[in-house]
Amino acid sequence: MRALALLLLTSCASNAWSVERATSVATDRPLRAAFLIVDGVYNTELTAPYDLFQHTVFHTKPGIEVFTVAPTKAPVTTFEGLVLTPHHDFASAPDIDILVVPSAEHSMDSDLENEALIEWVREVGGRARFVMSLCDGAFVLAKAGLVDGRWSTTFPSDQDRYAEMFPALDVKRNVSFVHDGKLLTSEGGAKSFDVAMYLIEHLYGVEVARGVGRGLIIEWPPSAMPHLVR
Amino acid sequence: MRALALLLLTSCASNAWSVERATSVATDRPLRAAFLIVDGVYNTELTAPYDLFQHTVFHTKPGIEVFTVAPTKAPVTTFEGLVLTPHHDFASAPDIDILVVPSAEHSMDSDLENEALIEWVREVGGRARFVMSLCDGAFVLAKAGLVDGRWSTTFPSDQDRYAEMFPALDVKRNVSFVHDGKLLTSEGGAKSFDVAMYLIEHLYGVEVARGVGRGLIIEWPPSAMPHLVR
Repeated sequence: MRALALLLLTSCASNAWSVERATSVATDRPLRAAFLIVDGVYNTELTAPYDLFQHTVFHTKPGIEVFTVAPTKAPVTTFEGLVLTPHHDFASAPDIDILVVPSAEHSMDSDLENEALIEWVREVGGRARFVMSLCDGAFVLAKAGLVDGRWSTTFPSDQDRYAEMFPALDVKRNVSFVHDGKLLTSEGGAKSFDVAMYLIEHLYGVEVARGVGRGLIIEWPPSAMPHLVR
Repeated sequence: MRALALLLLTSCASNAWSVERATSVATDRPLRAAFLIVDGVYNTELTAPYDLFQHTVFHTKPGIEVFTVAPTKAPVTTFEGLVLTPHHDFASAPDIDILVVPSAEHSMDSDLENEALIEWVREVGGRARFVMSLCDGAFVLAKAGLVDGRWSTTFPSDQDRYAEMFPALDVKRNVSFVHDGKLLTSEGGAKSFDVAMYLIEHLYGVEVARGVGRGLIIEWPPSAMPHLVR
């Protein structure tokens, strides 16, 4: 169950890709994936997993239902300047199976001092079946205690700061993502697709992942993708 | 000037990457990149180039100013369900240097019958210095006449339909993107990063592109990236 699998990046195709299937995925209803959005959220770290999860509904039934959750219903301005109207605020969000925390401009500083934000992440993430961060979203999860005792990763140039701020945590480097129990943490950026594709295969199998990948011109299974599964 | 360069995908690193620099890029003001958003626009094909262009401002001055333009100021719901408030409508959009047309759910059918949409694309794209499509955005550009006489590409499984609908056009296959004069067309999906990175290098040079790539964990210059420059 806790087998260690480490795929090293190689320049040639490898047949080593293999993903353990999740047990007992609900089939009588969609899995609900909530994407936390706050001012300064980074577009790609929101949209890469959002798109892949949403597209599952075209390849499996019932697939994943995606929505955004923000502290309030006020519009959220992303780091790059898009203006998003949240689907839910903290008070109205439905039960959540997968909590996704993309990085935001202040994931490493003032967001961590926002008690309502951290408390919501702690409570909802604690009950969720999976919790995923992209890039510096790992800081938010760590602050909420959701990384305690688990392996994790974050944006490469922020890994030192992460290790300093959370010295008890075991930060992993030079991997696209880490999967440890219910926690998935990704380096972020354009690598944000990798962890989401992996979770889709974990939940629904390689054929569903292959179909979702085709829609976004992502080769799946990958020939190489450095990651860690604990 | 019109040298043909075709990089084939290889499994090993190549030193063949080379991008011709654009002449006379404005340095006294940002280049203005408008992203056309309509209901059903695909997130990734919007956000991949949007993010890369926006991040130029951290690596060169004055870089690229990005904004969304929609037919009206009403909120736009993306294909995957995000709700965006446009920055401008057709009437209020400022002068545009780079027109970006991401694909949308109806890029191949009803959007092509929307005369106001096609006319706006024709006029604005005609005046713009560069016009870029992602995925099926190429259908919109083709309908507007902006692809006439040029090489182009679109989403792989829609290339046959594109060739049938626009039989005079020379559609290119098995390439991430095509650059022909002021026109850049991309296969779309996760490949949407490629064409935007390329244009950044074309405009600002490889060091700026490398810096922008680092922020999204995109290796630049790439070891291989199949594309065509006419």
